Amino acid sequence: LLQGRFIEAITETVGRENILLDPVDLTVYGTDASTFYSKPAIIVFPPTAEAAARALKLANDYDVPVVPRGAGTGLTGGAVPYKEDSMILASTRNDRILELDLSSFIVSVEPGIVLGNLNKFLSKHGLFIPVEPASDSVCTVGGNVSTNAVGLRGLKYGSFRESVAYLDVATMEGEILRVGSTTRKMASGYDLLDLFIGSEGTLGYVTRVGLRLEKIPRHRVAVSGAFDDHQRVVKAALEVLARGLKPSIMEFMDKFTVRAVSQYLEKDDLLGYDILILEFEGYTKGETMTQSRIAERVIEGFGGRAKLWDSNSEIWDFRKACLPALTAVKPKVTLFDLALPLGKLEDGLQEVYRISGDMKLDIGVFGHLGDGIYHPCLLMDPFSQEGEKLDDALKALSELAVEFGGSLSGEHGIGLEKKPYFAMEHPKTNIELMKRWKRILDPKGLMNPGKIWEE
Amino acid sequence: LLQGRFIEAITETVGRENILLDPVDLTVYGTDASTFYSKPAIIVFPPTAEAAARALKLANDYDVPVVPRGAGTGLTGGAVPYKEDSMILASTRNDRILELDLSSFIVSVEPGIVLGNLNKFLSKHGLFIPVEPASDSVCTVGGNVSTNAVGLRGLKYGSFRESVAYLDVATMEGEILRVGSTTRKMASGYDLLDLFIGSEGTLGYVTRVGLRLEKIPRHRVAVSGAFDDHQRVVKAALEVLARGLKPSIMEFMDKFTVRAVSQYLEKDDLLGYDILILEFEGYTKGETMTQSRIAERVIEGFGGRAKLWDSNSEIWDFRKACLPALTAVKPKVTLFDLALPLGKLEDGLQEVYRISGDMKLDIGVFGHLGDGIYHPCLLMDPFSQEGEKLDDALKALSELAVEFGGSLSGEHGIGLEKKPYFAMEHPKTNIELMKRWKRILDPKGLMNPGKIWEE
Repeated sequence: LLQGRFIEAITETVGRENILLDPVDLTVYGTDASTFYSKPAIIVFPPTAEAAARALKLANDYDVPVVPRGAGTGLTGGAVPYKEDSMILASTRNDRILELDLSSFIVSVEPGIVLGNLNKFLSKHGLFIPVEPASDSVCTVGGNVSTNAVGLRGLKYGSFRESVAYLDVATMEGEILRVGSTTRKMASGYDLLDLFIGSEGTLGYVTRVGLRLEKIPRHRVAVSGAFDDHQRVVKAALEVLARGLKPSIMEFMDKFTVRAVSQYLEKDDLLGYDILILEFEGYTKGETMTQSRIAERVIEGFGGRAKLWDSNSEIWDFRKACLPALTAVKPKVTLFDLALPLGKLEDGLQEVYRISGDMKLDIGVFGHLGDGIYHPCLLMDPFSQEGEKLDDALKALSELAVEFGGSLSGEHGIGLEKKPYFAMEHPKTNIELMKRWKRILDPKGLMNPGKIWEE
Repeated sequence: LLQGRFIEAITETVGRENILLDPVDLTVYGTDASTFYSKPAIIVFPPTAEAAARALKLANDYDVPVVPRGAGTGLTGGAVPYKEDSMILASTRNDRILELDLSSFIVSVEPGIVLGNLNKFLSKHGLFIPVEPASDSVCTVGGNVSTNAVGLRGLKYGSFRESVAYLDVATMEGEILRVGSTTRKMASGYDLLDLFIGSEGTLGYVTRVGLRLEKIPRHRVAVSGAFDDHQRVVKAALEVLARGLKPSIMEFMDKFTVRAVSQYLEKDDLLGYDILILEFEGYTKGETMTQSRIAERVIEGFGGRAKLWDSNSEIWDFRKACLPALTAVKPKVTLFDLALPLGKLEDGLQEVYRISGDMKLDIGVFGHLGDGIYHPCLLMDPFSQEGEKLDDALKALSELAVEFGGSLSGEHGIGLEKKPYFAMEHPKTNIELMKRWKRILDPKGLMNPGKIWEE
């Protein structure tokens, strides 16, 4: 159990009202959206950036492991403690918009702001942050930074990395670093900013995020294609790109997932099909319509049934329901985050289904096809004793990623879930470089320990 | 003088035909496109990636400083030796295209390939690398990596960083690291790739570059605006962005620069004006024309004279002639690389002219307005004894950058030119982190020493 003297000191630092110690609360904070669980010893909501820095310094002095946490929507156990007697540092009470600089196209926020809420606020100015994870109504900007989140519009706008102008990061030394810049371009010294983005809370605690703003496009049109088989979806998608069309979104849902969502939402127009969903953006309606019409012809050329949709139509609710719908089929869903080079999308998907068949495991697949990201979701019974099967499946999918020159994660991070396989993807020297970098900022190894790689 | 034993060993490693030792050659390689000069002791052209790695290992064993070099088009002295008895490792003989993966939209090249030549080759496939420095007919891809180059299309496509999928980097240990991935997205471990991009050859020698391909847009239109004063150029430019128009290029040339180019190219349509040049890209002609027409109205609304141009017209030759034309006015030109938040562009430019007036120094300004980059060019007589004045001007411009929340470099790097001012921009802790990172890869400090920061 955590030393009383630490509890005393941290209470003095952040105030009693910003601490949870009740066993029920601790249990709630013992899990995230993954299937991992481990009870922390204390939950701290730092009232200010400076309080967060002081809390880290104290943890460093008392050798207390720290787990940073946003909304807990992570799927890999990144916010679940790995060590006994961990302190959770939670950003959810720090959700203010600190500065909106319309002339420089930068908004500065606290890390606990919900991305969807921020976008709702920005829409009044015709602006948005173009990253759109399916969880955007819940997930926090700090969490988006920690996993380098992507979501739907990554094909056009990049990862969260491309939206981050600067970060303030509190370190274990109790300092607050500013990395990055409000300029649009920078070639002055090493790029420290990008080291922190996607580091899964293992280097420091983000206290402030500067984000780049985009103008909301004037026109958006969605196009869906319903196909008899998944190979044709991939072929059609690659042909859309090869023709020089510029979709902002290019999504995939397989028959299994479509069936789950059809049941979940009680809509069955797409039942029985593997589907592709595209979106085109433009300043003119002609730009979006011309591209949509050509995309329709590509879809039909591969034997698909094409349909145009308004940009705010139910097709996106259909897409965003994938994970909850699959969870309704079998409540224990483990989502893999397979990133492949575009040229390996067809063979890669075949392999996923081979693994599913060989292992007699239900796998529903959806994902961001244009970004080369598949989410094979492994469905298991809640009380099944199939833990070993799950490990084997995760290992097989990791092998697939590496064999095809891909990555174990496109946008969700490694967390606890995939750390046993991390060394399959990265050469020893690279992992050693990462560890040495971590040691510079966190010599005692207290910042979200046990994540990403095996110790 | 360099030890004979090192010369022997390196000759054995790379072959006599890949070494220059003649004093005339050494003199040639003692400078780049900056005004710095310092004679190296040996020039080595590593015939393969492995030979480059072995050459670095040897240099490490013999304590020989190494200066990596591409075409030598850098403007900050990054390729000029700082220490006595340096070895230049030159990539110019390694200019092959190694692999073109059309389905994954990746091309893999050797570092010495000239960017313009690569784009010429790619255009046959309707593809391009969207970074377009004015020196693209000469500069190498390896050099683009080292400074995180930008150029004309950064506003739409980002820095060189956004175009790099992966790098192979030879280290002082004689290893070759692979950082990055051919996937479009990745959230697996720390982002080592971006650390190397823009590191000005201080961490290792790039032996292979994987670049992301873009389809060449079907339509491009350019729009110029000629204004009586520079404030109006900036106001019009920001209004174009505020209206949600999406230019791919947004360039600025001031009266002084326009006059130099008008004389240099013997074209005087724009003489007497501060000018803005925009480009719009689209899948449809309607998209580009609609945006161009609105941009025209914005220009006219601010009292400018607007004109539409074909995308391949002489307006781009006019823009790309800035630096040579200014050099024709006075041959000693020092180009500063001021990056500002967009909201500071107007005040920042005023300040540049104030410095010019106060110091009685000819300054011509052009730059990538949409990316917040100004290039104030300090013109001096070739044999002038105004060295002190130059230092004062660089210091004043650096102070300006920092005061307005900007950066000392948007795209050219710090090199030797701005290292006295580097610490004005970056907090001590950040610089210490950069130095510690360098020490991990280059414990003896032999990789392009003396650049970026003061020792």
